[in-house]
Amino acid sequence: MKIALAQINLHVGNINENTTKIVFCIKKAQQYNADLLILPELTVCGYPPHDMLDYGDFVSRCQEAVERIARICTDIAVIIGSPSLNPNDAGKRLFNSAYFLYGGKIESVQHKTLLPDYDVFDEYRYFEPNTTFNVVEYKGKRIALTICEDLWNDHNFGNRQAGTKLYTTRPMDMLIEQNPDFIVNISASPFSFSGIGEKKDVFTNISKKYGIPLFMVNQVGANTDLIFEGGSLVVNQKGELFDRVSWFEEDFQVYELDEVLKTPAHVSDYTQTGIMEMVFRALVLGIRDFFNKSGFSHALVGLSGGLDSAVTAVLAAEALGHENVHALFLPSRHTAPISEEDARKLAGNINIPYSQINIEPAAELFGKSLKPLFEDLPEDTTEENIQARIRGTILMAISNKFGFLMLSTSNKSETAVGYSTLYGDMNGALSVLGDMYKTQIYELAEYINRNEKIIPERIINRPPSAELKDNQKDTDTLPDYEILDKILFRYIEQHKHINEIEEEGFDRDLVERVVRMVNQSEYKRYQAPPVLRISRKAFGFGRRMPLVAKF
Amino acid sequence: MKIALAQINLHVGNINENTTKIVFCIKKAQQYNADLLILPELTVCGYPPHDMLDYGDFVSRCQEAVERIARICTDIAVIIGSPSLNPNDAGKRLFNSAYFLYGGKIESVQHKTLLPDYDVFDEYRYFEPNTTFNVVEYKGKRIALTICEDLWNDHNFGNRQAGTKLYTTRPMDMLIEQNPDFIVNISASPFSFSGIGEKKDVFTNISKKYGIPLFMVNQVGANTDLIFEGGSLVVNQKGELFDRVSWFEEDFQVYELDEVLKTPAHVSDYTQTGIMEMVFRALVLGIRDFFNKSGFSHALVGLSGGLDSAVTAVLAAEALGHENVHALFLPSRHTAPISEEDARKLAGNINIPYSQINIEPAAELFGKSLKPLFEDLPEDTTEENIQARIRGTILMAISNKFGFLMLSTSNKSETAVGYSTLYGDMNGALSVLGDMYKTQIYELAEYINRNEKIIPERIINRPPSAELKDNQKDTDTLPDYEILDKILFRYIEQHKHINEIEEEGFDRDLVERVVRMVNQSEYKRYQAPPVLRISRKAFGFGRRMPLVAKF
Repeated sequence: MKIALAQINLHVGNINENTTKIVFCIKKAQQYNADLLILPELTVCGYPPHDMLDYGDFVSRCQEAVERIARICTDIAVIIGSPSLNPNDAGKRLFNSAYFLYGGKIESVQHKTLLPDYDVFDEYRYFEPNTTFNVVEYKGKRIALTICEDLWNDHNFGNRQAGTKLYTTRPMDMLIEQNPDFIVNISASPFSFSGIGEKKDVFTNISKKYGIPLFMVNQVGANTDLIFEGGSLVVNQKGELFDRVSWFEEDFQVYELDEVLKTPAHVSDYTQTGIMEMVFRALVLGIRDFFNKSGFSHALVGLSGGLDSAVTAVLAAEALGHENVHALFLPSRHTAPISEEDARKLAGNINIPYSQINIEPAAELFGKSLKPLFEDLPEDTTEENIQARIRGTILMAISNKFGFLMLSTSNKSETAVGYSTLYGDMNGALSVLGDMYKTQIYELAEYINRNEKIIPERIINRPPSAELKDNQKDTDTLPDYEILDKILFRYIEQHKHINEIEEEGFDRDLVERVVRMVNQSEYKRYQAPPVLRISRKAFGFGRRMPLVAKF
Repeated sequence: MKIALAQINLHVGNINENTTKIVFCIKKAQQYNADLLILPELTVCGYPPHDMLDYGDFVSRCQEAVERIARICTDIAVIIGSPSLNPNDAGKRLFNSAYFLYGGKIESVQHKTLLPDYDVFDEYRYFEPNTTFNVVEYKGKRIALTICEDLWNDHNFGNRQAGTKLYTTRPMDMLIEQNPDFIVNISASPFSFSGIGEKKDVFTNISKKYGIPLFMVNQVGANTDLIFEGGSLVVNQKGELFDRVSWFEEDFQVYELDEVLKTPAHVSDYTQTGIMEMVFRALVLGIRDFFNKSGFSHALVGLSGGLDSAVTAVLAAEALGHENVHALFLPSRHTAPISEEDARKLAGNINIPYSQINIEPAAELFGKSLKPLFEDLPEDTTEENIQARIRGTILMAISNKFGFLMLSTSNKSETAVGYSTLYGDMNGALSVLGDMYKTQIYELAEYINRNEKIIPERIINRPPSAELKDNQKDTDTLPDYEILDKILFRYIEQHKHINEIEEEGFDRDLVERVVRMVNQSEYKRYQAPPVLRISRKAFGFGRRMPLVAKF
């Protein structure tokens, strides 16, 4: 049996374009004489469709697409994902379904059992869990058809403690009773830099445990904040990785089932590339798809002469082409001359258009306009915020005039503690580095500079500064990033309590101060742009805190 | 049996303050010689705790609070709500629980069965559904203890079609087999102006169906976007409303069970006040609690001379006291003289401090700064947005300097179609009117002016204008609000398709244009402030759309 995997980039909600792509894959698989083609989860609508699922006509258009596609599946079987209507008059209105198309029609359908509803996932908001299990019989083989988290039954996702698990059922335990020959898993499993290894373990362990091969097809591409890395794979019945398709790009591969069963596993895997290469490629894909899928081609980046904006510009140039990324340098009287030199040099190194507008006249004018109300009150962060908001206003004006999208250059460390100005430097259509701690951005910069000094070394080596007052340094207000990031990781990713963090050797007062800063800046993050998610816990949709809470 | 209901205002996350309030209620109930005191859902932590539930120490502090409270419940039984740990090593980590405290200890616990997970509700993200049902026996009576949506088993919530229902089980069907004498329902059920009547029907129908009285205690107060109206009630065994406690404020009432059983129902209900009175009180409570619970006392409102900012200022003055609301008028060369007259008159009518800053010099300066980049490109919305962002910057500067919170004055109609400037007039800590269509704001203004002309009539009667260019009117860009709002309601609240809306008699081209405007402005709403929710479908947390979607 010849099995084709099509790892494709789907545009959420764009049923027509997705259908065209699916049909193209089917024709290609037919040319390869494949018996079976496997496509990713929720193929026809893309992932995550969110509340578009509340629209009846959206779901019926998905259904129509499936039926249309089924008609061309005459001599080939195709597995695709789509929302489907729950025929019962009680329970959630929809299922998250895998369709088995063959003979020009829908042969059978298997619904998803384990519905993720934690972090960025909201599947129980829309979908009823499956309770019936049937293998698909096809050309003498029996296929155990599963959808993404159906195979993650033993994990402690969400707020589950170590050693416990989120789900109470194991779909494969039911399916294995029907003696399947192999497992198919269609996925829309987003990237996190720390989760790649675990993801592989899940699939290899499943094959090993049940003693049959597995074909997993993941989405690739990004929809808003979620980046899907692809990395679809084939595992043999011993639980060895037989093949791994491309990372971060579309791919199409055909396998002979007998070869998977007989040949020893042979592939090298991601561990041969570093984590920062994966992150770099993830962010580039995230930017590119955000622009492509929302119909924009040009980015605007406010360069400050600092590291975050430099890295953002490099990533944007890689994603969109250097000629499509515009840099604007916005000095004030607090800006050091070396900031301008470095910003200009960076722009030159990556060959992006560079302009400059001095914000000093505007800062002075706002000061004058506000004088009657402020009288002789001392300067404070108000005046710093005004500068950031002037910059934000100028950058947005240029974006509006020329149809650019402005990129936010905030990082996760400063977003966490609120070291940023709402409606100022937080502005942007997309936050590129908002899920990277400052210390990780240094690592990414090192990766970028691995062959040549693209980012001028002084940008990397200078002490970070917002340059909103004279001789300002981040460390005037914040602890060293080396320490700050460790505390933040424990509080945000690991949900640790102040006592627990203290017990790991951190200064109690400092931990309390950092936690207080995080909690007090929830209101800023509520209005922040979407953040490209590369970790297990990014700010945004996956972290929901009540703003008025006292904790 | 004497049964006390304590309808209290809980501060989400503020376990200490909530506990103090609970203890105070218990002492009061003891003074009344009550046998049983009933408190609202998730009493100790407030609703909705969101991802604070992911923190282990948060949950253990809730548990400790329950145990501490139990110790004083020696001669009185108390029903309170709290998250509790799921002892099983599989499934969601927590339950949403109702504790029955008596004899100085936790006597029993009943978990919530039907967990809302639609619109603003995310309970399945955290909680495992209950599967065991036991009435509580106490002083010769058997109590059917339920939590909020446990009694809403027959409703078509979420994306369910009419005539179907979201849930597959009916907790009361299980409990009634144990012959309970009465039902207790502890709730955290938020306000929506269209849902008050339905809420009453649910409880009266339940009592009628099962033939026993019901005591429902709801939270009152607001936490961020969610406003709880209180309106706790007692229904007799015939399904008649026996009593209704206060709306929008704390209340404490004691009932003799025998009287509920014997006395005919006698109360008047909300229908004697109008919907706009309910909305007015809801928004006032929403503003007041947002400020109180986040530790602020002063609001800043940018007055434009238009209706939305006038109504916002009136509501804020009612909520915070007129001396704590500061009005700022920010004219440009496009501002009509009558705008200033009206703004000043409104401020005078409600006696709030009023200042004025001309934005024209800043608008000119930005134009000059951008000239080298814009060259001779024609003026467009860029220049309009600059004005809005100058206003936003000045308002934020004053908020920052004096520790005020800025209120956003956007309405639901303009938020829906994106007729607003991100980082400009959308700025604010809280959107007061963001869940009210423009036509509803006219109704609210009428209610405000019912006794005296608080809002100058010209503000109400003038054609709405953003005044971002000369002689601009909203209708230059948008259809009449009478039509726009009807289309928006059908698309946003009712999830209708363009075809269906057209069939109701609306112009096809117009419907398509409105739907396109709504879809194209998702990115603005993503970065909008939290909106006080008064409908079944507000923008914000309860409506989640993928930004890059094509639909």
